[in-house]
Amino acid sequence: MSTSHAFVPGHVTLFFTVHRDEHPGRGGSRGAGIAIDDGVRVEVRPGDGCRLNGEPVTIDPVDRVLDHLGVEAAVDARTPLPLGTGFGVSGAMALGTALAANEAFELALTENRLVDVAHRAEVQAMTGLGDVVAQHRGGIAIRTAAGDTSHGAMDAIPARPDLEYLCLGSIDTADVIGDDTATITAAGQAALEALIDQPTVDRLFIEANRFAADADLMDPAVAEIIESVRAAGGRAAMAMLGRTVVALDGGLTEAGYDASSVAVDPTGARVETRS
Amino acid sequence: MSTSHAFVPGHVTLFFTVHRDEHPGRGGSRGAGIAIDDGVRVEVRPGDGCRLNGEPVTIDPVDRVLDHLGVEAAVDARTPLPLGTGFGVSGAMALGTALAANEAFELALTENRLVDVAHRAEVQAMTGLGDVVAQHRGGIAIRTAAGDTSHGAMDAIPARPDLEYLCLGSIDTADVIGDDTATITAAGQAALEALIDQPTVDRLFIEANRFAADADLMDPAVAEIIESVRAAGGRAAMAMLGRTVVALDGGLTEAGYDASSVAVDPTGARVETRS
Repeated sequence: MSTSHAFVPGHVTLFFTVHRDEHPGRGGSRGAGIAIDDGVRVEVRPGDGCRLNGEPVTIDPVDRVLDHLGVEAAVDARTPLPLGTGFGVSGAMALGTALAANEAFELALTENRLVDVAHRAEVQAMTGLGDVVAQHRGGIAIRTAAGDTSHGAMDAIPARPDLEYLCLGSIDTADVIGDDTATITAAGQAALEALIDQPTVDRLFIEANRFAADADLMDPAVAEIIESVRAAGGRAAMAMLGRTVVALDGGLTEAGYDASSVAVDPTGARVETRS
Repeated sequence: MSTSHAFVPGHVTLFFTVHRDEHPGRGGSRGAGIAIDDGVRVEVRPGDGCRLNGEPVTIDPVDRVLDHLGVEAAVDARTPLPLGTGFGVSGAMALGTALAANEAFELALTENRLVDVAHRAEVQAMTGLGDVVAQHRGGIAIRTAAGDTSHGAMDAIPARPDLEYLCLGSIDTADVIGDDTATITAAGQAALEALIDQPTVDRLFIEANRFAADADLMDPAVAEIIESVRAAGGRAAMAMLGRTVVALDGGLTEAGYDASSVAVDPTGARVETRS
C-alpha cells in the first residue's frame, strides 16, 4: 500500500439526455461536452476522510467508490474548479479516487472496470449522468449511447479549440435530473442528431444554445452574457448544469468579461507518474 | 483548406492474435501493447507526395487513407522511431494523415470515423493489425475484440511505468501475418486470457515473453538481451514485430546497454493545436 495520484479533467456538458435504468451501468445520458485541462488532482492513501482543497467534505460518489472497491482510504482532492457549476467535479473526484485507489491498494483492476465503478457511483448518487465516461475519454466527446464502458458508446470531434469560461454560481444537478426529464431528453436527442450529422465545434455550440432554450434550462444572467459574446462576434454556451458560460477562443474577454482561459484536455483521466 | 498537424504515439505490441475477415473493419487483432511518447508528427496540406523525415516515401496505408477521404494532399511525417521495428510507424502515419487531413480539408468527420479509415487501410495493406486503434486510445491498451471502433473493443492497464527500448533491426510485418498464423493466435489468446485475469504491467511482460516463445517469433539476439536484463534484476520483452527490446524502468541501462528512454503516452492520437 502506498500513496497514489490521478488527474481527471473537468468536463463541460453542452447538451444531454436522461436515461434511467434499474441497472446503474445502463443508466446515464447521451450528449456532448468538452474535457478541459483545468481538472481535479486526487491523492489516495490508506486512512479515512475526504478533503477538497484542504476542507473536509462528504462527496457521496466518492464514498460509494471506496465502498465498492472495499478499501479504507483518505482522499485529498485539489481543483481550481468550483463544485456544482457544470464542470463535473463530483465525477472527477469519483473517477480520480477509483484510479488512484487501484494503484495505492494494488487492486489490479482494469481501466474500464474503474470507470464503471465511478460511473455507477455518480449515477446512483444523482450527482451526474455522463461526466465520468467523457472525463475518461478526454477531448470533445459525443456520447452516442448511455451507460458505462460496457453499455455506452462514444465518438468525438477531433478538434482542440481554445476556450474561456466564466462562472456565476451553482445549480443542484439532482434537482434537475430528479424532475420530469422528458423535455430535456427530447431537446438533447434533437441536438445529438444534428451534431452527428455535422460533427464540428461550431455546430456543437449552436446545438448547445438550442438545447438550453428548448429544454428550458437557460439561466437569464448566463443568456445575457452569451448574447454579449455573440454581439462581439464570438460564440458561447451554458455549461450543464451550472450558472457558467463557456466561450470559444477569447470570446468572453473580447466581450469585456474577466474570464479564465482553458484548453481542451485531449488525454482524459490518468494516473500520475511517481517520478 | 489549410495546413494541419497531428501527433500519433508509437505503439509497442507485446502479444497479438490474427483475425482475418472479408470486411476490413472486422479484421485486425486482439492483444496488448504500450503507447509511447516517441511518436510520429504528421503535417497535411493540399498538394501531393509523402515524406518521412524529409525523404520521399511510399506508405501504402497513407495512400489508401487519402484515397478513401478523397483528398489530394502532401503528407510530411517526422519521427525518431525507425520503420519496421515494432513501433507501429505505418499505423501512426495512416492515423495522423486521417486526423490532419480532416482538419486541413474541413471534412467534418468524427474521430471514430477517421480511426476506422486508418485501421482499415492498415489491415488491407497488411502493415499492421491492431496498432491504429491502440494508438488512438493511448496508454497500455488491451484489445479484447478485433476490429475498428465499430467492431473492436478495448480495455487498459491504468499504469504509467518508465520504459527503455533498444532497436536491433527490422522485420517485415506482412511476411509474418501473411503466413499461417494459427500458432500465433493460439499463443496470443493464451496471453490475453492470462492478462485479463491479472491486468498488471508485470503480468504483461511475463505474457509477452511466453507469447514470443510459444508463437516462435523470438529473435535470438533479442532473446539474449532480454535475458541480460533479467539477470540484472529487470524485466524486458520483444516488440512485435521488430528486432526491438523494450524494458521496464532503466532495465536496459542497468544491464549495460545504450538504450532510449520513453514514457507511456496516456493521450493517444490527437490533432495539434494551431497556437
